[in-house]
Amino acid sequence: MQVEITNEFIQEVNEAAQRDDKQFVATKIAELHPADISEILKDLGEEGVKFILDNISPELGSEALADLDDDHLRKFLKVLPVSRVASFVNELESDDAADILQELPIRKREETLFALQDKEKVSHILDLLHYEEDSAGGLMAKELVKANINWTVKQSIEELRKQGERVEKIYAVYVVDDLGKLVGRVGLKNILLANDNTLIKDLYDPEIISVETYTDDKEVANTMRKYDLEALPVVNVQGQLLGRVTIDDVVDLIKEQAELERQIMAGISSNIEEDDNIWILSRARLPWLMIGMFGGLLGAQFIGLFEGDLMLIPAMAFFIPLITATGGNVGIQSSSIIVQSLANQNILNTGYLSRLGKVILVALVNGVILSLIVMLFNLVLGQSLMISSVVSIALFSVILLSSIMGTFTPLVLDRFGFNPALASGPFITTTNDLLGLGVYFLVAHFLLGL
Amino acid sequence: MQVEITNEFIQEVNEAAQRDDKQFVATKIAELHPADISEILKDLGEEGVKFILDNISPELGSEALADLDDDHLRKFLKVLPVSRVASFVNELESDDAADILQELPIRKREETLFALQDKEKVSHILDLLHYEEDSAGGLMAKELVKANINWTVKQSIEELRKQGERVEKIYAVYVVDDLGKLVGRVGLKNILLANDNTLIKDLYDPEIISVETYTDDKEVANTMRKYDLEALPVVNVQGQLLGRVTIDDVVDLIKEQAELERQIMAGISSNIEEDDNIWILSRARLPWLMIGMFGGLLGAQFIGLFEGDLMLIPAMAFFIPLITATGGNVGIQSSSIIVQSLANQNILNTGYLSRLGKVILVALVNGVILSLIVMLFNLVLGQSLMISSVVSIALFSVILLSSIMGTFTPLVLDRFGFNPALASGPFITTTNDLLGLGVYFLVAHFLLGL
Repeated sequence: MQVEITNEFIQEVNEAAQRDDKQFVATKIAELHPADISEILKDLGEEGVKFILDNISPELGSEALADLDDDHLRKFLKVLPVSRVASFVNELESDDAADILQELPIRKREETLFALQDKEKVSHILDLLHYEEDSAGGLMAKELVKANINWTVKQSIEELRKQGERVEKIYAVYVVDDLGKLVGRVGLKNILLANDNTLIKDLYDPEIISVETYTDDKEVANTMRKYDLEALPVVNVQGQLLGRVTIDDVVDLIKEQAELERQIMAGISSNIEEDDNIWILSRARLPWLMIGMFGGLLGAQFIGLFEGDLMLIPAMAFFIPLITATGGNVGIQSSSIIVQSLANQNILNTGYLSRLGKVILVALVNGVILSLIVMLFNLVLGQSLMISSVVSIALFSVILLSSIMGTFTPLVLDRFGFNPALASGPFITTTNDLLGLGVYFLVAHFLLGL
Repeated sequence: MQVEITNEFIQEVNEAAQRDDKQFVATKIAELHPADISEILKDLGEEGVKFILDNISPELGSEALADLDDDHLRKFLKVLPVSRVASFVNELESDDAADILQELPIRKREETLFALQDKEKVSHILDLLHYEEDSAGGLMAKELVKANINWTVKQSIEELRKQGERVEKIYAVYVVDDLGKLVGRVGLKNILLANDNTLIKDLYDPEIISVETYTDDKEVANTMRKYDLEALPVVNVQGQLLGRVTIDDVVDLIKEQAELERQIMAGISSNIEEDDNIWILSRARLPWLMIGMFGGLLGAQFIGLFEGDLMLIPAMAFFIPLITATGGNVGIQSSSIIVQSLANQNILNTGYLSRLGKVILVALVNGVILSLIVMLFNLVLGQSLMISSVVSIALFSVILLSSIMGTFTPLVLDRFGFNPALASGPFITTTNDLLGLGVYFLVAHFLLGL
């Protein structure tokens, strides 16, 4: 059942929480989709969250928790006692269970693991906790359905009956050999339509795409998107099947990475939403504004060196915004193309040198066109030939330099393990402002012979 | 089989194309995954594309075409005769088939439809061509497996055997009543594990999420992501089941929209990739650079009005970059938060007025902090109290105005059907540069009593 969450409904929940109206949860919350319940939780205070999570069924509550982002999850787990956390964890597949355990302080984590009845689940979770969060191992669930290559369809269906209990969505049966090595897959459809006595050997598709536990999460996402997979098996270095990543987690990942990149490009330094409070919103913006501010103050000091020149030719000041804005625009354009290439991983077969050549050619085309237009305008508008030349030469140089900066900054950032999108944000505009000012005033100083 | 596409391999393909080596396609291309073949096609010239698509099996070629973006698809279809296009279309599910037909000129489209043997497919395609590309109707495929609520599991499996032929990935059987209205779904797993004589009525899950044909594609993506769906049924206004959208298409959509947004934010005006040619790359950048340039020239004219003031107090010029950069940074921060809210559609229950209040408060916090720091720095660095005050007052005003501009520009753009991300690109920096200059020089002019 789909709902729209209104302010009035949130109000109702808060009132029900105040009078501890358990009936309210049973009638108004329990009928909702877990994804909607997690949306509601986000809009509630600590009391409201506790009220719902105390009174909801573990099945529903666990799914609602699994739908949350890490920040909210951590906050909500704080209000729950160990026994309650354990009852939620108990309902979840291993990947979501491990995500919850990951957000607990170490002592509460141990206590929760101890409180779990299902020892197989505990071992699954412990296994998953080893992997980095941003690797295939960190994304995978241990639950899946596998069949030995020598089985019949009938045996596989029996196994599926057993294993299937634990697996929410099956998609396919993975085929392994006697050593547990992944050798292929059979779609559920094919099993459904096959004869009971058919051998898996004669039915399975040996063309199977898999990743290793240490594969980077972005590569996992790219692989699943490129090959249109709804589940991707994960193997260890021996090729043994350990788990699988499902598309719902990857969809969330793609979305989160797009949001992260947008925030980085916009110079916002933490994951904020419009309905966060004013202090959080201000604080997330300040760091980059500060950096921009110091850049601006540095620029002021720099221009100050040319105070004498400015007194002689005030017209030089007129074109400061033109120069800095163009530098910023060119820099962001250049870097965003590289960020895109890096995201799509189709960058590998281009050498630095051939890339540099291309960047320079594109910059030359745009630089020539823009500086000629500006030259024309300035002359028509009555600036002197000298000033007009200085502006156009500086503009041309800035376009060239900013292109090169914008191209290589994200490559360098990526090489050193930073998010390359940083190079499309205030970082590059601040740097290029200074670069532009430097070029402009130096060109002016020497050309005008000041 | 996963491959890495090297320049050497592309070279090999080109050479094979030149000697029309059909054997090459059969041995080197035919063993690849269609998604890899489409990557290879993108790296080839017209001849290479024609060579591969002429000699590849229709099954493989059609899947490779279905994996392409619209631009490449349109280009490649031009080199193919109608009979070949028809043989590809014949292999595809209706949504991919309709996407191909959509890219053909009207005459070739009619001829291709005429050449198709499968009249049911023709009617499916004609049906889909009616819908807007960015609606659920435009995303859906007609192929799906449905069962009447009164059937038994056995009847359903028989039907599945028939219908399943045409459907690549089944996921679930949709349950409809006698009027064709969607009433629920049964997972394949449940059918597999149920008794032959069980009635669908006793097995199906009536809690099913669906969208209508006219639902916006972004809402389709949000719904599938939120509720972790791998397929989403599409119904008409009577609630009758017409088709379904599958997650692979939505993953592509999310990715494409993130890329589009990045390009818009970076001021790039068409869908380009790093390996496009220099003219395409330059042309895609010029429009926004031009707009920035005219903004800069306008700024120059504006500052020119204050030439007298500048002659008296050249120090005024020092702070131009500080003011314009801060305006740009604040504007982009503000707009990107709104763009995110719009993308997640969690914006509806916030009124304009309460939003305005919050924006102003955040701007006040940041404005006060930054302008005090700048004041302090300027005084310490030896600027006069008057100049320091002018700069800080102007900075504070610019932060306030840019926040308001940055917040409402994306809302207005969205209201009028434009992509709100436009407000996070050079558009807002150019506007805010001018805004900042205006505020700065007016404040200076009146405060300094020039």
